[in-house]
This record gives sequence, C-alpha cells and structure tokens, in this order.
Amino acid sequence: MPRPTTLEWTGSSLRLIDQTRLPGETVYVDLVDEKQVWDAIRRLVVRGAPAIGAAAAYGACLGARGATPDAPGNADAVRSRLLSACDHLATSRPTAVNLFWALDRMRRVQPIDPTDGAAYLQQLLDEAQAIQREDVDCCQRIGEHGLAMLQRLGVNPPIRVLTHCNAGALATCGIGTALAPIHLGRQRGVAFEVYADETRPLLQGARLTAYELAEAGVRVTVLCDGMAASLLSTGRVDAILVGADRIAANGDTANKIGTLGLAILARHFGVPFYVLAPTSTIDPSLRDGSQIPIEHRSTEEIARPFGADAYNPAFDVTPAGLIRAIITEHGATAPGDLGPTIRQLAK
Amino acid sequence: MPRPTTLEWTGSSLRLIDQTRLPGETVYVDLVDEKQVWDAIRRLVVRGAPAIGAAAAYGACLGARGATPDAPGNADAVRSRLLSACDHLATSRPTAVNLFWALDRMRRVQPIDPTDGAAYLQQLLDEAQAIQREDVDCCQRIGEHGLAMLQRLGVNPPIRVLTHCNAGALATCGIGTALAPIHLGRQRGVAFEVYADETRPLLQGARLTAYELAEAGVRVTVLCDGMAASLLSTGRVDAILVGADRIAANGDTANKIGTLGLAILARHFGVPFYVLAPTSTIDPSLRDGSQIPIEHRSTEEIARPFGADAYNPAFDVTPAGLIRAIITEHGATAPGDLGPTIRQLAK
Repeated sequence: MPRPTTLEWTGSSLRLIDQTRLPGETVYVDLVDEKQVWDAIRRLVVRGAPAIGAAAAYGACLGARGATPDAPGNADAVRSRLLSACDHLATSRPTAVNLFWALDRMRRVQPIDPTDGAAYLQQLLDEAQAIQREDVDCCQRIGEHGLAMLQRLGVNPPIRVLTHCNAGALATCGIGTALAPIHLGRQRGVAFEVYADETRPLLQGARLTAYELAEAGVRVTVLCDGMAASLLSTGRVDAILVGADRIAANGDTANKIGTLGLAILARHFGVPFYVLAPTSTIDPSLRDGSQIPIEHRSTEEIARPFGADAYNPAFDVTPAGLIRAIITEHGATAPGDLGPTIRQLAK
Repeated sequence: MPRPTTLEWTGSSLRLIDQTRLPGETVYVDLVDEKQVWDAIRRLVVRGAPAIGAAAAYGACLGARGATPDAPGNADAVRSRLLSACDHLATSRPTAVNLFWALDRMRRVQPIDPTDGAAYLQQLLDEAQAIQREDVDCCQRIGEHGLAMLQRLGVNPPIRVLTHCNAGALATCGIGTALAPIHLGRQRGVAFEVYADETRPLLQGARLTAYELAEAGVRVTVLCDGMAASLLSTGRVDAILVGADRIAANGDTANKIGTLGLAILARHFGVPFYVLAPTSTIDPSLRDGSQIPIEHRSTEEIARPFGADAYNPAFDVTPAGLIRAIITEHGATAPGDLGPTIRQLAK
C-alpha cells in the first residue's frame, strides 16, 4: 500500500494523516472520541468516500467506548452510546453514502453477551476493522478490473489517464479506486501518464493526487480544471477515471464538483469516461441522481472581493448516460445495468 | 466609464493600474519607456486584448520618443526608434492579435515633415490616442448590440449571465466587451445577475470581474471553473458571454483557457454562447483556429508538489460551430459569416 497511511487504529485511538496540511506537512492526529472524528470528517482531515466510511466506523467504536474505557458498563450502556455516536457522526457530511453504510453496519452489530460491555466493544472494533480490511480488498479488486479494462483499450503504454480530485490511496484504506489501476500498473510495469485536475476550491488533485502519484513514482501533470477541454482536444488522454461519492440505482453518480463537466467533455471528444468505486458507494434506495443530497460548503472557501457572492457545491451528479462503465470490486458494469450488482448487495 | 481607469496617458508616461495586485491593492504604475511597457504586458499588469493593443501603441510612442524627449532628432531618428520599439513590443505576448494590430497601425504612421521629429512624435501620440478613443467607442457599441441581443432572448430580468476571465472595463479602454452589455444595462435599469468563473490559474474572474462588477453595483457570484456544469444544469444561466483574444477568418475564437470547455457545456445544456470583441480582434490572415499561436505560460503559475509537472496553456480555441454569434461594434454576426465584416476591415 502506498505511504503515508490514510487511517490507522492504534489500539486506543484513530490515527489520521491530516489531509488539509498535505503535501506541505505530514502531520498525524490521534482522535479519541466521536466528536473529534465528526470534526475530522467535516473539515476534510479525512476525505474520500471509502475512507470516510472507515473513519466513521472507528468513530462509532470510540463513541461506544465512552469516557471510561476500563469500565464500559453492560452491553446496553455500550449500545446506547453507540447509537447516539452513530446519529451524531451521520450529520458530519451528507453526500458520500459510505458514511451511512458504515454506520448502518456498526448499528447492526448486536451484543452476544448482554452483561459484557467490554466484549461488545470488541465486537464493534472487529466490525470496524472488517470494514477497513474489506476496503483494502475492494481497492485491490477494483484495481485489477480497472487495469484489465484499460489494457483492453489497446493503447500503447504509457496509458494516458485524466483524473479529478483524489480517488487514490488517500481516499481509501487501500490503493484507491480511480487510482488503483495506476498503482497496480506501477507494481507490474504497465506505464501510466496521469493528468490530475487541480480540483478547486480545495485542490485535492494538485495537493493529494499529484503528491500520492509522484511519491509512488508515477509521472503526473497537474492542470487547472478549466484546462481539461484544451488537453482533451489535443488527443493526449486515453481514458478519464474518477471515483464516486454516491451512485443511484440507475447509475447516476455524485462525485467531486467538476466531474459532470469532465464527463460532458469526454462525450464531446470521444474519450471513455469510467467511474471506479466499491459497491458500498451504491445507494439502491435512490431511483436516480436527482435524489442524491448535495453538500454546499461555506462560501468562505472561494476567495472573492467584497460585495461578491460565491457558489460552492462540493459535488455534482453525472448522468449514467455519460458513463462508459462503473467498475466495482465485482468488475465492470454498464451504469444502466447495476441491477444484478444491487441484488447481490441485498443478499 | 467604470473606475478605476485601466490605462491613461499622463502627457509624459503611460499610467496603468497594476492588475496583478487587484482587488487587494489599488496601485498605479507610470511607465516611461517601451521596455517597461513590454514587461507590464508580459506580467499581466495590463491584460485583455483591447487594453494590450492600446498599451502597446503608447509603448511604441515612448520608444519613439527615446531617452532625450526634448531632442528627438529628425523624423528618421524617431522612426528608427519607433520600428525597433514595435519589434520589441511584438514579442511580449503571442496570442492577442490586437497587440500586432495596434503596432501595425503605429508603424503605418508616416512623418509629414521629415525634418521635424517632434511633429512626428505628436503624430504617433495622436494615433495611440485614436486607438484608445476608438476602443472606448467600440466597447460602447458592442454593449449596445449585446444588450439588444440579450433583451431579444425574452427572459424576465434579471438576465442571468455566466462569464469567464475578465472581458470588462479592466480589459479595455472603455466599458469592456463581454461585460459591456452589463455595464450599459446597469446604467439603463436592466437588471443582470452575473456568474463569474474564477478563472484559474491567475483568477482574473474572481479578482477582476467580480471586483469590477461589485464596484459597479452589479450582483455577481464567483464560482470555481469546475462548477460551471453544475450551475448550467440547474437552469440558472440565460446566456454565456466571453471576450476574445484572436478570431480566425472562419470564426474560430481563441480566448482565455477554459472558454472551450464552457462552449461545449453551453452546447450540452442548450445555453446560447456569445463572443463579444472589437473587429481589431479578428485576424483575417488566419484560415482557422488551428493557426492561432497559443501562449504557454510558466508552469510555476500552477502550484504542485515536488516531482509533478504542470500543463499551462493561457488560451484555448473554441470552434466557430459552438458560438451562437460574434458581437462586434458592427453588430451580431454568425461566426461562419464573418466575410462581410472582414471585407469591411480591409477597406
């Protein structure tokens, strides 16, 4: 797995790399209660849908543990703290469904022994660690499917990829989603050349993707978001790969603001556009993308003169029709054909 | 005309507002020779195709004047200095054709009295002032035609406009090109609501357009370049208005990087896309946009981690087919129908 580590359970705290300070400073923070985890998710200390899910799961454990870890009380007391921690964590950010998915998994863990709060805490920790471990595995499998698919495009390496925001190791517990094929390719001698949209206003592409790939020894070029059309018009991009924050049942996909524009440009220039995400990002309860709640962040994130307002949605929704395929840990699927994947989820 | 003044001849120097320091600081610089003007154009102290043309014309005057204004020598000496100043100024930036157009006008001024260098200098200054005055007039007429055209769209005010970069008063000697209808509307009680792309990497939209419009009392909202698709998808934009740096004979238009992407989005969402520019921005010598030289600026303009490269073209080319109309001082023209306008230019 690429370094640095996004998220780690220390035995008594959740350790995160502070992504608001990358790439300039490598600072780790140790979080000891659910309020700190809530704040870290809200402030984007940890971000990326899969990483948010795992962080929230550990946050639920910290909440369930309570203020006196050596005397957790019985399982009822633990469960009461768990449920209120889950409710609180669910208010941190609205769009990435992995947050709610992970909290639901935590809530579904029932105590085996009602008298033993400590044993219940261990069950909860086991579940959070399972979520983390499964995400590592999902990333690996997304990488395998994505790399095979890119190789089927039949282009001579380097395979030239454009990506947006950061859907890499820093967004997950593993090797990323959109960047997973690239990390795998690096390990296996398949050359990639990556163009990374800087991704305003918070520059996750310039700060995180460029850092993560340069550290991994992948050739990476940063461009401003408005330069993607120019780049695509030169024919220098073989495929566009992005992650996802929530995918509706019909394949409409919410992802970092700017993704929709990229998908429209991809259609215009005939470049294939792929979404890579674990099935935990699919929300089968939503018929289409119009039902996905979109977070609007503080207008303070956008610098402007006195008297000017700002428009600052954190996500947009790309219609399924603009997506060539959605690649999950189960393989590539046409976005209009998510039904079997969703039925598999329900099992 | 909106304040502050972009460009002013003081009698002995060219005074510019330093646009690299707006909106934080209002600093004027007085330039006394062509090398200072070259540097101001190169560093974007003055920018915007029409303003660059006028600044270069005054730069040519300053070069022709030479180091001893009180003893300019005969007209041959003045002309020799003029021609080398024009050659030098022509190397400042490659894309905006108004630069070369203005320098050509200066070169075509022939001395009436070969013995009188001072009189020739006055002729040159008259020509630079004519260029400036004509630009004020062009802006006004572009504003009239643009406002009439927007009113013909039949939308209830406020007319909601999206623009990119700054094609306003700060880019011209007058009330701007793309922003001219808005400034005129303000004077005449036609309400506008303007969305301004921040325009990375140098933020001319967030710094200059938002400042200029807020100062003029126009409601303006800044968005990051990658948010335009989201905004357009909400149906909140009636028209997209942009300026131009060079228009080929077939209507293909070079403008600030990001314009091409916006034109493709406009087509996708069915929003009319207009280019507003004086005829001095048309380059009839170029068959199509592929012949327009595109400036690539220093990769230092794009922040990124060690080991990452950057892609930094300053302009892109929008094909004529994506442009609803080009609005010059002579009125609105379909971009494929520039022939009569070009023939008028040749007269």
